[in-house]
Amino acid sequence: MDKKLRLLIPGPTPVPPQVSEAMARPMVGHRSKGFAELTARLTGKLQQIMQTSNPVFILTSSGTGGLEAAVANTVNPGDKVLALVGGKFGERFRDLARVYGAEVIELDFPWGQPVDLATVKKQLDTHPDITLVLATLNETSTAVINDIEGIGALTRKHGAVLVVDAVSGLGGVEMKPDEWGVDILVTASQKALMVPPGLALVSVSDKAWDLIAKCKSPRYYFSLEAARKSYAKWNTAYTPAVSLFFGLEAATDLILEEGLENVFARHRLLARATREAAKALGLRLLMPEECASPLVTAVISPEGVDVGDLRKLLLDKYGVLFAGGQGELSGRIFRIAHMGYADHLDVISSIAALEMALSELGYGLELGKGVAAAQKVFLGGAN
Amino acid sequence: MDKKLRLLIPGPTPVPPQVSEAMARPMVGHRSKGFAELTARLTGKLQQIMQTSNPVFILTSSGTGGLEAAVANTVNPGDKVLALVGGKFGERFRDLARVYGAEVIELDFPWGQPVDLATVKKQLDTHPDITLVLATLNETSTAVINDIEGIGALTRKHGAVLVVDAVSGLGGVEMKPDEWGVDILVTASQKALMVPPGLALVSVSDKAWDLIAKCKSPRYYFSLEAARKSYAKWNTAYTPAVSLFFGLEAATDLILEEGLENVFARHRLLARATREAAKALGLRLLMPEECASPLVTAVISPEGVDVGDLRKLLLDKYGVLFAGGQGELSGRIFRIAHMGYADHLDVISSIAALEMALSELGYGLELGKGVAAAQKVFLGGAN
Repeated sequence: MDKKLRLLIPGPTPVPPQVSEAMARPMVGHRSKGFAELTARLTGKLQQIMQTSNPVFILTSSGTGGLEAAVANTVNPGDKVLALVGGKFGERFRDLARVYGAEVIELDFPWGQPVDLATVKKQLDTHPDITLVLATLNETSTAVINDIEGIGALTRKHGAVLVVDAVSGLGGVEMKPDEWGVDILVTASQKALMVPPGLALVSVSDKAWDLIAKCKSPRYYFSLEAARKSYAKWNTAYTPAVSLFFGLEAATDLILEEGLENVFARHRLLARATREAAKALGLRLLMPEECASPLVTAVISPEGVDVGDLRKLLLDKYGVLFAGGQGELSGRIFRIAHMGYADHLDVISSIAALEMALSELGYGLELGKGVAAAQKVFLGGAN
Repeated sequence: MDKKLRLLIPGPTPVPPQVSEAMARPMVGHRSKGFAELTARLTGKLQQIMQTSNPVFILTSSGTGGLEAAVANTVNPGDKVLALVGGKFGERFRDLARVYGAEVIELDFPWGQPVDLATVKKQLDTHPDITLVLATLNETSTAVINDIEGIGALTRKHGAVLVVDAVSGLGGVEMKPDEWGVDILVTASQKALMVPPGLALVSVSDKAWDLIAKCKSPRYYFSLEAARKSYAKWNTAYTPAVSLFFGLEAATDLILEEGLENVFARHRLLARATREAAKALGLRLLMPEECASPLVTAVISPEGVDVGDLRKLLLDKYGVLFAGGQGELSGRIFRIAHMGYADHLDVISSIAALEMALSELGYGLELGKGVAAAQKVFLGGAN
């Protein structure tokens, strides 16, 4: 028998059985009345989860496709774009703006630290002609949550359109685009939304539509105007990933049944338990507590332990898959996701496996100490 | 109980149980060894089905995304592109080239007729500076198969890169890109390949790579160089639709077990039975026999019968979903697909339902006559 896989990477995340079941449904015509109704229902449910009254479009692509949609529809060559970069996904967003010819003003924050608002303010003050600001909610590569509310307040005052990559955060952590002034919000199916990869979700504010109307960059598959027109008529502009739509509706139902606030509290609790466990084992976290992601935890690999060896042992012997570091953090950290379809015992079993693997690799620890720290958090109740 | 749906539209097509089962598998990490191996196996199987030794990249998007990849990676503003248009999908390909700034030379062929090679030759002779030719294998909107071998011979002689939209044809009808001189071949999962929508497949020749290297148009998610680099390292450049990959492997296994030649013969037989049945009922076909698609049949709606009424009755009373006409053919034709996971009795039951519905709508016919004509074709053996 194949080893039982415990997936603790920050996407794709485990899929609940209700979602798998929904995805196994027979195909339907995507221009049928039934599928148009499903798309309309989904829009409503997604607006609740994304906490926006803006239209939400579902694109058949990974999250990166959603980010490209945001950029391709708003950036003209030579436009001044402020990119807030603190990790791999911030870099990707910056690269996208460059590909579309933007004059990118890049603000680099140390990997593992959040975006600094004073620095952002200074750049916005210096450049009144910035048209677009690119920010990341949950920088998956560093397990840092950025202060989107604060960034939103600054961009709103400045006048620029704010685009937020919420690919790995949305549905697991508070995000209020309308209240905070986020104009284009991008997320994807395979993170906290608990659906296999293949769908990007994009919400668009009136302010963003004004910029989109002035954008001359080529786009067809990712055209947001095409999406808007087609949604007004029936649903997606091009053939949607029907089975993933079925799965997405099942997943949104699960989230709305649990209740958004409860889902957020569960993520905070799992994250706190993971952090406390790591600290109890004498491990250091990459990110400061005050900006620690509720979705993923980045642990600095202890001296003498090779991250590659650790991850291999965890996978081969215990079926536990952690993520490694990316970019400049490669080989320096490992990342434990607690995102989407995750509960108390997922955290505890992953910590138990981590203890055993570290022990085998010669790192001195007291077995069970990390588990006990997590248990204490759970018995202590919600954060 | 919901009505039992018989899906006879040209995509999405019915999904075999083996594919649904594969898609219900738990998630895995897309950068894992196992998933890299699956991608490598899939590449080999797809090369067999696409009959090419060129690399095949799987993009998470609908077929239109694959078409945009072909254009965005090859077309610079001002490039001279020859677009062969004979239906809605030919128009889409032309539109894509325009979006990327091409100087499009459009050859329009009457909807329901194939591309005329003499006309193509004349244009190629007149314009030695054409860099790209866009052609459609199976024009789904008219049920016409184009002579890609003939077009390939002309473009090879001319020197232009040939891009073929084989979205709705590939896996159901002969297509030999390497032998025929097709440089970029695009197809998608939800047609003859029997997988839900969400994946586009793109093969790229050495000649096409030369053009791609010179292309300055913006692309990121659909960058074929990014795909090539990432495949060399592990697999797709961005997070793939993991469950659809599982389904695609199950589907390619089914196709290769049946044998490509047998799959093609089955499609030809089903198409012939459908055409004979339609003719036996006194119905006229849109396309001439010699270029009739083996994947879909376009029937001209008889005088006095409203296509909308017919399709509604078929769906409401018999659960049979035919496609209507698109663009200028809207309201004039209906289309019966026999594509992918389709067999003798799928054709016969759809014809039986058509007979009953036409009869109810006052069209004079002898019940069972169309069914009998199809039966005769089946008893007569392979085409």
